[in-house]
Amino acid sequence: MSKVVTSEITFMTRGEVDIHDLTMEVDAKIGGSGIQNGIVTIFVPGSTAAITTIEYEPGLLQDIPDALERLFPKNIKYGHEMRWHDGNGHSHVRAAFLGPSLTVPITGGRMSLGTWQQVVFIELDNKARDRRVILQIMGE
Amino acid sequence: MSKVVTSEITFMTRGEVDIHDLTMEVDAKIGGSGIQNGIVTIFVPGSTAAITTIEYEPGLLQDIPDALERLFPKNIKYGHEMRWHDGNGHSHVRAAFLGPSLTVPITGGRMSLGTWQQVVFIELDNKARDRRVILQIMGE
Amino acid sequence: MSKVVTSEITFMTRGEVDIHDLTMEVDAKIGGSGIQNGIVTIFVPGSTAAITTIEYEPGLLQDIPDALERLFPKNIKYGHEMRWHDGNGHSHVRAAFLGPSLTVPITGGRMSLGTWQQVVFIELDNKARDRRVILQIMGE
Repeated sequence: MSKVVTSEITFMTRGEVDIHDLTMEVDAKIGGSGIQNGIVTIFVPGSTAAITTIEYEPGLLQDIPDALERLFPKNIKYGHEMRWHDGNGHSHVRAAFLGPSLTVPITGGRMSLGTWQQVVFIELDNKARDRRVILQIMGE
Repeated sequence: MSKVVTSEITFMTRGEVDIHDLTMEVDAKIGGSGIQNGIVTIFVPGSTAAITTIEYEPGLLQDIPDALERLFPKNIKYGHEMRWHDGNGHSHVRAAFLGPSLTVPITGGRMSLGTWQQVVFIELDNKARDRRVILQIMGE
Repeated sequence: MSKVVTSEITFMTRGEVDIHDLTMEVDAKIGGSGIQNGIVTIFVPGSTAAITTIEYEPGLLQDIPDALERLFPKNIKYGHEMRWHDGNGHSHVRAAFLGPSLTVPITGGRMSLGTWQQVVFIELDNKARDRRVILQIMGE
């Protein structure tokens, strides 16, 4: 019998670029749901953060921010900044390209990730924030 | 009792880069489905458009196209263009990087978006097109 | 009655950048599942490969690698490389930006793709690998 269990994870971030490993908490929520086989959608309600997977190790915690700055520099002109003056035009553009949602298969009561693959939240906003990530766990 | 409701949204676009806010229409389709809790997958059947979320405001409607042109310029050489001569090699590459699919949790009968977060369709093709976006709404 | 069917596709890749068209195999697995209407989540368990859609034709098989090299060059400094010396720092960063997961609606027993849209696996690692892609097929 298929069911839906909604959960969430909350945490505080430092300013950009702050990468959090959510893997253990997501798997704990899946464990609590009783769902053995299905999917989990991990979603950030907001337009200045993103969800993806990386090997969570110190080298990449520098490489991801470096790539973001190379591709979407802080110090170029952003229309968003011209209008709103909150200093985070680049954050919005980065978030749109990385994306706010990730769906991962659940098998045997946990995410079917690779051995060196973690689910990460990427804070792209230019200030510390209280963040909430929604988990929609579906299956049987 | 879990169910699946398929719906679609159709609209006409101008040529690239034309960003449409689909949020209200997607929420209306979810409302019509009767599903209160689950997920919606928003998918574009085609390889020259993308779905993501942004804060839909005029500054970003310029910043996203600017970033696309900076990262994937129109006027460099594309193998796709050499073969097909339809002027949209860059459109295909941009679409592959942004992605054709977005899955959003549904809670309380609507998408659990942030306050300043909208679901957008991005037309990347170089001409006006009639577009169709498929919504797969699943849950209970 | 909603159900969940887990399947997988295995194949060998050459080193980067090697793009495989998975469309027919995914549709065959959906056919075998008996699910007519729902979604399929196509997921790579690993942090140096990605899933997206493209028009699978020879021009783009060159354009996607060209764009990856332009945006995430092999021969710049990566923190991952400094620590692990496996020559694939750029592979990890590319994979994080492209993403490991794609969810596609199923209608009429197959993926609702566009006519010139294929589901592709992109090998980003710097060596040949045996790869496994997980398909989570859900619906009725």
